[in-house]
Amino acid sequence: MNQASIVAKAALNAWSIQVDRTGKFLDSLTDEQLEREIAPGKNRGIYLIGHLIAVHDVFPEILGLGKKNHPEYQVIFLQTPDKGIQDIPTTKELRQNWKSVHERLQLAFEKMPAEDWLKRHESMTDEDFAKEPARNKLSVLLNRTSHLAYHFGQLRLLK
Amino acid sequence: MNQASIVAKAALNAWSIQVDRTGKFLDSLTDEQLEREIAPGKNRGIYLIGHLIAVHDVFPEILGLGKKNHPEYQVIFLQTPDKGIQDIPTTKELRQNWKSVHERLQLAFEKMPAEDWLKRHESMTDEDFAKEPARNKLSVLLNRTSHLAYHFGQLRLLK
Repeated sequence: MNQASIVAKAALNAWSIQVDRTGKFLDSLTDEQLEREIAPGKNRGIYLIGHLIAVHDVFPEILGLGKKNHPEYQVIFLQTPDKGIQDIPTTKELRQNWKSVHERLQLAFEKMPAEDWLKRHESMTDEDFAKEPARNKLSVLLNRTSHLAYHFGQLRLLK
Repeated sequence: MNQASIVAKAALNAWSIQVDRTGKFLDSLTDEQLEREIAPGKNRGIYLIGHLIAVHDVFPEILGLGKKNHPEYQVIFLQTPDKGIQDIPTTKELRQNWKSVHERLQLAFEKMPAEDWLKRHESMTDEDFAKEPARNKLSVLLNRTSHLAYHFGQLRLLK
């Protein structure tokens, strides 16, 4: 294994650990548990799952791997606070989209050459990237992993 | 910058983001807020901060950079559940140790050659590492970052 492959493997492993743990935990929750607030007055479980789907659905765009599948989720789960939502998708829909958004990413990551993780991502200009080469696709993956872990820690309080 | 330096910078940046955010949030909490449970019946803020200090205090040992400074924290915050603790360190002590444990890591990481992140860590045998080179020091850093983000997500509920 070359250096880039070892790095990509370590980073994708850290990502998959969080995706798998959150997915398994989601499967273990009843719909009623998922609809509860994580703590009194805080976000509901369904809101956090929708929020994570919305963030991960736009991930392929940042990596240059294709468009998002659920543009309506951007408005509901990224631009609206939980308490402001009129119509939230059903738990059934959210559970399905959790699976499909991560299956898509998994397939895309498997096809991606390890060296590509060190390349510029789509939210950076060539000029900025020349100055800050550590703000690459890998850094997006690492920060998405932290973001997922952050909300998984909150979701765990539903049980 | 060579490949190893770029990778180390991206990974250390992801780590520092979580350390800095958690540290600032901790500074913004009163002692009374820190002593509250993150949700009814769940761990207290002080327990989670002590738990993070205990895990990060042993981090230099795993990287081969020196012994832990607070062995007593291993018993209190890693082997005892919050509800089983008789004498918990004061908020003042925890706030001080939060700072010192991360200052020590920061200095150690600054001195560490970027290539070292791809080397074997102290909990792996040479034999296992030959089979799984992605289970290197970098992977420990990535998993510690996720672990910190997980508990930071919970601590945020104290406000």
